Amino acid sequence: MSKQEIPYKIYLTENELPKEWYNVRADMRTDHRPLLNPATHEPVTLAELEPVFCTELAKQELNDKDAYIEIPAPVRDFYKMYRPSPLVRAYCLEKYLDTPAEIYYKFEGNNTSGSHKLNSAIAQAYYAKEQGLTGVTTETGAGQWGTALSMACGYFGLDLTVYMVRCSYEQKPQRRTLMNVYGANVIPSPSDTTAVGRKMLAEHPDNTSGSLGTAISEAVEVALTKPNTRYVLGSVLNQVVLHQSVIGLESKTAMEKYGVYPDMVIGCAGGGSNLGGLMSPFMRDKLKGERDPYFIAVEPMSCPSLTRGKFAYDFCDTGKVTPLAKMYTLGSGFMPAPSHAGGLRYHGMSPILSQLYHDGYINEARAVSQVDVFKAAIEFARVEGILPAPESAHAIKVTLDEARKCKETGEKKVILFGLTGTGYFDMISYDRYMKGELNDAPPTDESLAEGEKDMPKV
Amino acid sequence: MSKQEIPYKIYLTENELPKEWYNVRADMRTDHRPLLNPATHEPVTLAELEPVFCTELAKQELNDKDAYIEIPAPVRDFYKMYRPSPLVRAYCLEKYLDTPAEIYYKFEGNNTSGSHKLNSAIAQAYYAKEQGLTGVTTETGAGQWGTALSMACGYFGLDLTVYMVRCSYEQKPQRRTLMNVYGANVIPSPSDTTAVGRKMLAEHPDNTSGSLGTAISEAVEVALTKPNTRYVLGSVLNQVVLHQSVIGLESKTAMEKYGVYPDMVIGCAGGGSNLGGLMSPFMRDKLKGERDPYFIAVEPMSCPSLTRGKFAYDFCDTGKVTPLAKMYTLGSGFMPAPSHAGGLRYHGMSPILSQLYHDGYINEARAVSQVDVFKAAIEFARVEGILPAPESAHAIKVTLDEARKCKETGEKKVILFGLTGTGYFDMISYDRYMKGELNDAPPTDESLAEGEKDMPKV
Repeated sequence: MSKQEIPYKIYLTENELPKEWYNVRADMRTDHRPLLNPATHEPVTLAELEPVFCTELAKQELNDKDAYIEIPAPVRDFYKMYRPSPLVRAYCLEKYLDTPAEIYYKFEGNNTSGSHKLNSAIAQAYYAKEQGLTGVTTETGAGQWGTALSMACGYFGLDLTVYMVRCSYEQKPQRRTLMNVYGANVIPSPSDTTAVGRKMLAEHPDNTSGSLGTAISEAVEVALTKPNTRYVLGSVLNQVVLHQSVIGLESKTAMEKYGVYPDMVIGCAGGGSNLGGLMSPFMRDKLKGERDPYFIAVEPMSCPSLTRGKFAYDFCDTGKVTPLAKMYTLGSGFMPAPSHAGGLRYHGMSPILSQLYHDGYINEARAVSQVDVFKAAIEFARVEGILPAPESAHAIKVTLDEARKCKETGEKKVILFGLTGTGYFDMISYDRYMKGELNDAPPTDESLAEGEKDMPKV
Repeated sequence: MSKQEIPYKIYLTENELPKEWYNVRADMRTDHRPLLNPATHEPVTLAELEPVFCTELAKQELNDKDAYIEIPAPVRDFYKMYRPSPLVRAYCLEKYLDTPAEIYYKFEGNNTSGSHKLNSAIAQAYYAKEQGLTGVTTETGAGQWGTALSMACGYFGLDLTVYMVRCSYEQKPQRRTLMNVYGANVIPSPSDTTAVGRKMLAEHPDNTSGSLGTAISEAVEVALTKPNTRYVLGSVLNQVVLHQSVIGLESKTAMEKYGVYPDMVIGCAGGGSNLGGLMSPFMRDKLKGERDPYFIAVEPMSCPSLTRGKFAYDFCDTGKVTPLAKMYTLGSGFMPAPSHAGGLRYHGMSPILSQLYHDGYINEARAVSQVDVFKAAIEFARVEGILPAPESAHAIKVTLDEARKCKETGEKKVILFGLTGTGYFDMISYDRYMKGELNDAPPTDESLAEGEKDMPKV
């Protein structure tokens, strides 16, 4: 294609929408570390997961054999309402940076949830409906997952209770209202509606701002005690990375149309759902020795699980009711400093990403400061038009750095990054950044020690 | 196409993006009523418009001869960052309504401004830049136009001062921050930065909530007094309807791909930019006697310029500094009751739409209550996924009504409506609706009399 003919963006047709998700675990040549029962330290069985998770989702969670899993037709139909999402060639950004690098991004923000979370939400709601459940519970931090799941449950007519980290609940009433529009019941966490919430409130009466870990504990407790109800989760889990592979599969097909293959794949990483999905098909090529893209996981300096955590078995929640997962973790007791990238405030990391990082397939993890992240977000917004979510802007920050390096070295790298969502509900943070009110603090040694205190001995 | 193969939405390729805007005035077989100088009541000349408007835009304003006007290449390049926008077949809505009607909508909300306003903003900023101006001024009500123009001016490096209706400025700090992100200077109106603002504040010290009409007056005053600066406007004007024709042109091409032609075209109408743009190419067919689509303009009951206004020459602003336009108007002194569809709170209506309505080419105008509008918005959001702006939801309300009529009569009408934008910044209004706090009041006879009091005698 001549420069003139190269489009700014490629939308695949609905017929080109993937018919199967890709399960990267099936191609990982490593011993998968199973989830463990926290009491016995034995691998958890399907039977043990079924009271918490929908059966089909529990099967997906444990599946490390099948590389491809069919996307059910009703889920594909829902996908067609907002997918395929565009793969954008960032011409304006390249010009602004005066870089020889080619920059592409997969934009997942063009749906009402405002992020990629909807890709897994609709799948999880579908399996819950298929199983004949009447409702599900979940937690949400920044509100993106809660919004996505509200839309999905609204679509399938399922009851939904969302435990929303209290500081987000108070800072983002608009997010709460949006979930209400789709019919969800939203409760600030910690709350007095659960035993674990009441315990947190009693033990930490001076710290009621909440955390994802606590909200998970509350949602799981309700799922276990309410009839016909299960718990669903928007990140960390293997099933979520599986569903999010739709991002990477579409990206790969669109990049083939552009006639390019990424030298570098960059994604923000909180629980790992976005980077996991974006990189999966490219990681496949690397695992099979066919290609060697360079993967960078970008995390917030304030919650640096990959760069400062341990690769160890740990609880997925603060209340210690979940199975143990082998992952990079700051410890379930870690309380991140207030950060506006709420979606990245999680003590652990997807076991899949953790293993791939541990084994060297994810080449690098980089922790960045939120001040730098907002600076990059505004540069990007002004030249590419799209207002990124703070979470997404972590990937932008590193993309700008890498593209500027290319300018110095003259390298024509092909960079792909994940633009996971939009920042419409983050204007307070943007405002604070522009007023110079944001700052950064890496975790203190004390907070890291506090986090690790109760790490299980496995 | 078989049902199975019919896509949920059609994205045209970037090559199919229109190369020319369509100027419906050239095909209107009516005496165009010129803008009049408010002092002399003589038709305004290009020379009189040039101190206020960019020269090229003033020429477009007066052009009733050329049916097609080339879209400059830099504007088309910018369009490619977010256009063509999708034309969606509303399968889920049809199923939900159990209607034989086919419902299509053109969705203009997939850009950071959140609405169709960007289509004209980038054109106006381009012509200002080409003319060597250093900046522009404007007003904004709901904030959609201000956001769009901020993005456009940020892209071309133009200074921008936005007078924002004070009640919106206070209710929507997020909108203001978003404009700041793109580098705009946002001032609540009425303000003490202009003579007209100071006059309003002195005369109405108890009513400082502002109106579009006042904000226009302030922005025009600054454009006239600041060097190298002109005024730009996001609706009402002929040039805006011209630029917005890109909506209708894309819609028509996409509907041809679906193999259908609309029996009915529905759009919300405040100043008329959206409906004007959406309907233009279909109106051409009607003006030429080739087709006979039925056009419905939907306006808020609280500000019913078409259904309760007069077809008369009137000022476009409250401060009476603008030329007189022949239009449906409630009078420049009309103060609409507080309504959350801020973008529709304007006393007048596009002269093009006014003339077409007067001549019977726009078949019908319908005023709807905002309680009904929010009810329709939530129904739509839950089945089609997209959260509409309250303005856009006016069209949804009437679309639902018409589709339900089709169910009664069995008619398989093809309905096209304009989904102009998203409601992310309207969550407070959604919340108030869900709490039952919204209500409706049509204008009282007194408020209508007050509006007409100073209508010029032409």
